[in-house]
Amino acid sequence: MASNLPPINGDRFWDTLMVSAEIGRGSRGGLSRLTLSAADGEVRHLFRSWAEDAGYGVAVDRLGNMFARRAGSDPTLPAVLVGSHLDTQAAGGRFDGILGVMAGLEILRALDDAGIETRRTIEVVNWTNEEGGRFPPPMLCSGVFAGVHDLDWALARADQSGATVADALDAIGWAGTAPVGGRAIDSYFEIHIEQGPALWEAGIPLGVVTAPYLARGMRIEVTGENAHSGPTPMARRRNALVGAASVALAVNRVGHDYADREGKSTVARIEASPNIPGIISDRAALFVDFRSPDPRLTAEMEERIRASLPACAAETNTDIAVGDAWTFGETSFDPGLIDLVRRTAAELGVKCLDMMSQAGHDAYHLARIAPTVLLFTPCDQGISHNEAENTRLEDQLPGLQVLFGAVLAHANR
Amino acid sequence: MASNLPPINGDRFWDTLMVSAEIGRGSRGGLSRLTLSAADGEVRHLFRSWAEDAGYGVAVDRLGNMFARRAGSDPTLPAVLVGSHLDTQAAGGRFDGILGVMAGLEILRALDDAGIETRRTIEVVNWTNEEGGRFPPPMLCSGVFAGVHDLDWALARADQSGATVADALDAIGWAGTAPVGGRAIDSYFEIHIEQGPALWEAGIPLGVVTAPYLARGMRIEVTGENAHSGPTPMARRRNALVGAASVALAVNRVGHDYADREGKSTVARIEASPNIPGIISDRAALFVDFRSPDPRLTAEMEERIRASLPACAAETNTDIAVGDAWTFGETSFDPGLIDLVRRTAAELGVKCLDMMSQAGHDAYHLARIAPTVLLFTPCDQGISHNEAENTRLEDQLPGLQVLFGAVLAHANR
Repeated sequence: MASNLPPINGDRFWDTLMVSAEIGRGSRGGLSRLTLSAADGEVRHLFRSWAEDAGYGVAVDRLGNMFARRAGSDPTLPAVLVGSHLDTQAAGGRFDGILGVMAGLEILRALDDAGIETRRTIEVVNWTNEEGGRFPPPMLCSGVFAGVHDLDWALARADQSGATVADALDAIGWAGTAPVGGRAIDSYFEIHIEQGPALWEAGIPLGVVTAPYLARGMRIEVTGENAHSGPTPMARRRNALVGAASVALAVNRVGHDYADREGKSTVARIEASPNIPGIISDRAALFVDFRSPDPRLTAEMEERIRASLPACAAETNTDIAVGDAWTFGETSFDPGLIDLVRRTAAELGVKCLDMMSQAGHDAYHLARIAPTVLLFTPCDQGISHNEAENTRLEDQLPGLQVLFGAVLAHANR
Repeated sequence: MASNLPPINGDRFWDTLMVSAEIGRGSRGGLSRLTLSAADGEVRHLFRSWAEDAGYGVAVDRLGNMFARRAGSDPTLPAVLVGSHLDTQAAGGRFDGILGVMAGLEILRALDDAGIETRRTIEVVNWTNEEGGRFPPPMLCSGVFAGVHDLDWALARADQSGATVADALDAIGWAGTAPVGGRAIDSYFEIHIEQGPALWEAGIPLGVVTAPYLARGMRIEVTGENAHSGPTPMARRRNALVGAASVALAVNRVGHDYADREGKSTVARIEASPNIPGIISDRAALFVDFRSPDPRLTAEMEERIRASLPACAAETNTDIAVGDAWTFGETSFDPGLIDLVRRTAAELGVKCLDMMSQAGHDAYHLARIAPTVLLFTPCDQGISHNEAENTRLEDQLPGLQVLFGAVLAHANR
């Protein structure tokens, strides 16, 4: 099958990425296209117009998740979904997520060029708020689609200005009418840049994800006491900001202690209040995450982090507690689809590496409700979530062809 | 002279504080009246109406500094200034600053009651943005009045939303027409709660400040590199937030090391960017300050802090540099006025403690251009910059009477 694969139009595919890269352009050549921003609204219009110009109907659900549908010959069968996300971090790259949506679009167009009707319908999906940079948590709207989060809860998530997801959807006019999820899905394919250096360093164009790292996140809350930064004696101070600093170093240390076993920990965000010169902060919070290839190691890291908190509190005369905690990477990808990707790659002569996924992806949620596979392609030096994120068509084309072959085979089975 | 002092109306004085305490009331019984907020505008109208009702002309300068003027018999002589500030921290107390303005107002009213005309004009002043909580640095507008800061620079200071001092003055209609400073001042008197526990613990109602602590502030800047919080190996990470945490602990440690000699250090504010889950921050900044009673010790503390930065940078794989740095407490108060306060206290039978000032006050700037004295009164447990800040009329009245006696004597000399 794969050896008879109709041609992909690589230039057309690349053009979609480069046109997208002009919408919400960052100051350093990347993208600043936070979810549900004006720029996100604009790229959605672009994606819809491309889909509609080709004759694909576009459904939009209450959360703005978009589905561009190319009908199959048997409309009673659930659809094969291919996709990712068009939103970026505040200072993100041009490929993270976008590549997966545009790859889906190119597959539909290539099928049109070749005059091929698939048995099953194929839908190309753009998930709202994969990044979580504006509205934590990440992968919010694929999470609702997969029944992991509640719809009303998701609509009520707020950004730093207090605007909710519901407000932001209204503001850019992308609250759709389709229900969120609740329908049968045949399967889900996602292709994404690796966001790490393994493929780039090995010079291998494709990875298939066999399992996710088990990642845990926590919000750690520090309570101290307001006081004037001048007269208050050191012994009386309960500076929540200093307490948070102590926790930050402890969390970071655990990551280094497990680095030889590929463990990682991140202090990603700090909040302090009132956080102004002249006054000692009474409250601070840290958002941290940690992960490893082995769920037992991840659990051990969590134990180490939790065990470090009493000493941080004692040392800084503050109270420290774990608030919200969350997990991702508990799901597993479909062995049949993983094997299909491996076989398709072999038939096309594309070298394909078995990998674990270290970052969260919409595929993690979809794996709960449908057979799911996640493909990785290289990005230069593994740099991502950074405007310097970069790659070239020739590095992406082999992966795109394998995706095409696997999707086509699966839609036609 | 002091023994013939006309009576102060303590209840009237206390009422002004309690009416003020209703304007911008905090959720926990204190005040939330950031400079140039709507609430600050409101308390300014109140203060002006009280002054004008009593027949005092009120001048407002370009920065909103307010001067309520009770004319003396010899209008050719420079005025005696008495005052402090009506703004508070975001979660501040009802007395910090406000007490000094209302004390000045009560002195003018008590002179009216007694039918006393002073030789020199007395002006009661409300300095804009003493706190610096919204627009750093603190003591901004007394600083311009005293020639320490440039007017245009002060007008261009911005809050976290990007609004400037000039914008905020326009927004509440308090940009006046009087020039800022540039006129001869006879002397400046300021009475303020101690904001530390010394008077409260000793049960002494008054302190006269003989010298300020020499305080230094610095903005310490950390540079790392953006990366995805998932796949990036620990060894490659350059998390600016972790670098800042390391600096925070180092600065705090220096304060503790000098605590036996009354040294203090504060990590007051942290900024990180982009500071969101899923991404490693490439920039962070800490606002720190440190002080001691002895300028040589303060210099030693600075040396220790600066010397700790290379290790923090190496340990966290970041670059760390000191950005802006500033000093306050280099000025000295007037020996003649300090002695006048001591003598007045003795005549009135009020116990008065020689003290050093640990927090910054508008008096620090005024001391550069006129003989200046700073008086302290107790506050419960030394708690300040906190809604729980508290005191009672009977604890303030002795200090207020000494201030009255000293101002009257000095205005009539």
